[in-house]
Amino acid sequence: MNNLTKICKAAFEAKYTLAKLNVETKNQVLTDTARLLVENASTIIEANKEDLKNADAKHMPAGLRDRLCLTEERIEGIAEGLRQVASLDDPIGSVEEMKKRPNGLLIGKKIVPVGVIGVIYEARPNVTADVFALCFKTGNAVVLKGGSDAMHSNVAIVAVIKEALKLNGVTEDAVGLIEDTSRETTTEFMKMNDYLDLLIPRGGAGLIKSVVMNATVPVIETGTGNCHVYVDSDADLDMAVDIVENAKTQRIGVCNAAESLLVHRDVAKEFLVKLEGRLKPHHVELRADEASREILTDAVSATEEDWGKEYLDYIMSVKVVDSVEEAISHINRYNTGHSEVIVTNNYQHEELFLNDVDAACVYVNASTRFTDGFEFGFGAEIGISTQKLHARGPMGLMALTSYKYIIYGNGQIRK
Amino acid sequence: MNNLTKICKAAFEAKYTLAKLNVETKNQVLTDTARLLVENASTIIEANKEDLKNADAKHMPAGLRDRLCLTEERIEGIAEGLRQVASLDDPIGSVEEMKKRPNGLLIGKKIVPVGVIGVIYEARPNVTADVFALCFKTGNAVVLKGGSDAMHSNVAIVAVIKEALKLNGVTEDAVGLIEDTSRETTTEFMKMNDYLDLLIPRGGAGLIKSVVMNATVPVIETGTGNCHVYVDSDADLDMAVDIVENAKTQRIGVCNAAESLLVHRDVAKEFLVKLEGRLKPHHVELRADEASREILTDAVSATEEDWGKEYLDYIMSVKVVDSVEEAISHINRYNTGHSEVIVTNNYQHEELFLNDVDAACVYVNASTRFTDGFEFGFGAEIGISTQKLHARGPMGLMALTSYKYIIYGNGQIRK
Repeated sequence: MNNLTKICKAAFEAKYTLAKLNVETKNQVLTDTARLLVENASTIIEANKEDLKNADAKHMPAGLRDRLCLTEERIEGIAEGLRQVASLDDPIGSVEEMKKRPNGLLIGKKIVPVGVIGVIYEARPNVTADVFALCFKTGNAVVLKGGSDAMHSNVAIVAVIKEALKLNGVTEDAVGLIEDTSRETTTEFMKMNDYLDLLIPRGGAGLIKSVVMNATVPVIETGTGNCHVYVDSDADLDMAVDIVENAKTQRIGVCNAAESLLVHRDVAKEFLVKLEGRLKPHHVELRADEASREILTDAVSATEEDWGKEYLDYIMSVKVVDSVEEAISHINRYNTGHSEVIVTNNYQHEELFLNDVDAACVYVNASTRFTDGFEFGFGAEIGISTQKLHARGPMGLMALTSYKYIIYGNGQIRK
Repeated sequence: MNNLTKICKAAFEAKYTLAKLNVETKNQVLTDTARLLVENASTIIEANKEDLKNADAKHMPAGLRDRLCLTEERIEGIAEGLRQVASLDDPIGSVEEMKKRPNGLLIGKKIVPVGVIGVIYEARPNVTADVFALCFKTGNAVVLKGGSDAMHSNVAIVAVIKEALKLNGVTEDAVGLIEDTSRETTTEFMKMNDYLDLLIPRGGAGLIKSVVMNATVPVIETGTGNCHVYVDSDADLDMAVDIVENAKTQRIGVCNAAESLLVHRDVAKEFLVKLEGRLKPHHVELRADEASREILTDAVSATEEDWGKEYLDYIMSVKVVDSVEEAISHINRYNTGHSEVIVTNNYQHEELFLNDVDAACVYVNASTRFTDGFEFGFGAEIGISTQKLHARGPMGLMALTSYKYIIYGNGQIRK
């Protein structure tokens, strides 16, 4: 049995005891992990320095390097995240929709953990602690496959988690870390159907696609967001400018940032002039269709490719449309099923947009940036699902649960 | 573009209009299909005779041939199923859990169709109409890949469905039938991620495994059931005999039939003697461990393989255990996550069993045979999920839906 199989099998065996942990123990492990992370911050930062040294030798881009870097302040932030998860209600064990059947059987849906969750991610060491917290709170075992660039940091963080588990008499197999980051091991991991119940990829479009195409374990697809704002003929244009500015520029590197702007022909001139002024200080490059370029003073020509692009940068595609229907069909053709906005005061148009746009989150008169587990009131987030099975949109603790039917009888047999 | 791609793309394009159909139109299509099936019964039976002729030439086993065979009565049964689906409530469009956030955003979960559902099944032509009805009622397009053995029957049934769609001005692409049943086409079908949202295999263990291992489209695993009845030390033994007889013999070829019996040592003698007498007229072969064979007068030796087997036959494995804990760990090791029963009057034991057995349906004092969408009150069933994501246990109309978040704002931007 290779090391990968050992880790997955240990998690599989741990899941039965984890499913039964009481909430006090789970919360104690989480707050102990938070405390130990802070106490061991210097050790973790030492390990992180090794990763940063390698990153520098490889000339890692500045944005990625910044995500990899851990400081005392960032470790305190991770610890605070753990404490927040501890403070959330535990969904495990509740029974929903309990109903009596005519034959006397009493049938209910009991919330249970999924079991063993595999998570494949890149070079963000904070994900290691975040993902553990969410999976552990919901009684799941978790097997982590982080990127090689963050391996020293991940090893140090997992050591702290295991210490907190041990301190509370909980099996250390609640968390497993795969240290072999070869392609072969990763592929084998995605096919561990005997041990894994679910696989969640967290990272860029390439990683997610590779997991979707190679995994035989059920996958929840997360992430990429080609989000649109459509400014309708009946929009409050000042509100529309605020929303587009916020959705595009408040934070550029995230999946709920807007990447594409659609504007109704009737208001295109007035709106685009206003918007261009507002976006100027942010240095947003506008890639526009011909009709928009006639209005915009400083825009480049959009190509077909631009309509489908998630820039994650100060770039936005712009297109003039003739109707809400055209906006909807453009969005349904090019979007990634993430977050879409209409700005309008027209009831018919917002109803059409809400009904017909196919995406996880469809907004009227608000920024795409609210697509987030915390903003939705879930208290936590494991990712944003852009597929339709099991969970869609921001995934909180409930996305990491399943259910089983429990049935109370008194001797019923089927006729 | 090959024919497979054409069919899947047509379904993909149809999904937007299907999602918006009002319930009256959907129900009219279903009742028209029912009427037309009965009116065209002789044409369908002619087509079915072709399939039966081929089946006879291939010496198809009697059980399979029986499932393939269509009669006027069976066609009336299929039509009645369609009428029943028409009479069910339409879940599409309802909004659940609508909540106001502190920033004023009003966020709700709107029930929507999954989109395009692919179904891969074997030689049961009734599945063609059943599956269409459930998918269509929930606003989904469906692409059917039936077995080659039932192709003439399937073509005839799909022609009737398309006639009913046309009659009501609904796109005929709501249903597609893949007539090329080659292995290559089937494999290509399982990887149609651009067009399919979900794949459901319906059939034997081999078919299901092949889909799980080869598909890149999300799959809901259905079906195989190695279901156990555990007779506890505190069981009402007469009730236990009734339940085991019913679970084992009421219908042998179905996934919710019991395949394995566990009995507590303290009651093994009294219970097994009673049970053996009751099962005698059914000619059930008992494959038993040593302790049981000392009691049973007519049992063969169970091998390790027997504990994991779904017989679908008049065969049952039997094992004596020393405790409810041993029963639970045996079940969690060998079961397929389907349906498990404890017969007991002991509160502690039933609680332990309900909590710790990992299966879609866990019963106290009732037969496994109730694991069924109709018996659970769903009014219909697309299959029984034995996995943990999206849907578990009997799947009714809700299992064919997803949701999207709809968010009403008044200019909110993120700080």
